[in-house]
Amino acid sequence: MKALIISADGFEDSELLVPYYRLLEEGIPVHVASLNWGAITGKHGYQVKVDLTLGEVRPDDYAILVLPGGKAPAAIRTELTALEICRAFFAHNKPVAAICHGPQTLVSAGLLKGRRATCYQSVAAEMKDTGALYEDSEVVVDGNLITSRIPSDLPAFTREIMKKLKG
Amino acid sequence: MKALIISADGFEDSELLVPYYRLLEEGIPVHVASLNWGAITGKHGYQVKVDLTLGEVRPDDYAILVLPGGKAPAAIRTELTALEICRAFFAHNKPVAAICHGPQTLVSAGLLKGRRATCYQSVAAEMKDTGALYEDSEVVVDGNLITSRIPSDLPAFTREIMKKLKG
Repeated sequence: MKALIISADGFEDSELLVPYYRLLEEGIPVHVASLNWGAITGKHGYQVKVDLTLGEVRPDDYAILVLPGGKAPAAIRTELTALEICRAFFAHNKPVAAICHGPQTLVSAGLLKGRRATCYQSVAAEMKDTGALYEDSEVVVDGNLITSRIPSDLPAFTREIMKKLKG
Repeated sequence: MKALIISADGFEDSELLVPYYRLLEEGIPVHVASLNWGAITGKHGYQVKVDLTLGEVRPDDYAILVLPGGKAPAAIRTELTALEICRAFFAHNKPVAAICHGPQTLVSAGLLKGRRATCYQSVAAEMKDTGALYEDSEVVVDGNLITSRIPSDLPAFTREIMKKLKG
């Protein structure tokens, strides 16, 4: 079992690092995919190595997709390859966990219509516009989809990720 | 069961936040103690609320003590109250988990003589000088004592913390 994180420069550091380290604690290898090779830098200055570009991702290789927030999703959501990866996870009903601005990519992929979900408060309007059933909760689980709002929701977010992977 | 984190301004953000959120994921309340009321700010700018001052800590209330790294331990290790708290955990053989510069406080408390431990590389000399059996490993567990070196050791660090609390 392997995990995939898709992000870019400007990610909310804790929203990437906490799930990243949590999955590694569990012995699950994690690959970070981004627009370019090299490293990505978070809002708070943490650098994370990029393991592969979006074009190199084979969604079948991964059991779960994690989409951290910050400013990264604004760059990710315009990449058609990123949207195709998200659709592949949904098509196979595999867990997708998005926090804060992370769900923006799922909005752009057209995957949230009729789905219960949450996000950062400034993202709520577009989430509702796309037909999602928005809830203001620390974590919302709807089938394969796990969403949270802010860094302080991370304990609930990682708890539901682990339940999904172990269940 | 409750957990105690002792830190101060200049903490290594991920070394505080990752164990903090991990313990909360497990449903374990976490209190952060520091020199003063208010909040402490990490090297990368994350702010964490202070729940109580060092003088207010009753070690009997907690099942585990976590000592993150960064520049915080330099300020913590000169506080006699902090050293007394560390000694109380050791006296009752309760888990103490220190990472990076965190073990400096245990050096000042005189608790590492003859104990297997690790730390950030620049701390290794004083750790050896105090009589500890230094190892360059991602995590070293010796009885109640859990130590690690750097942020990328966090998965091993939290894994051993959880083993200790569940075992």
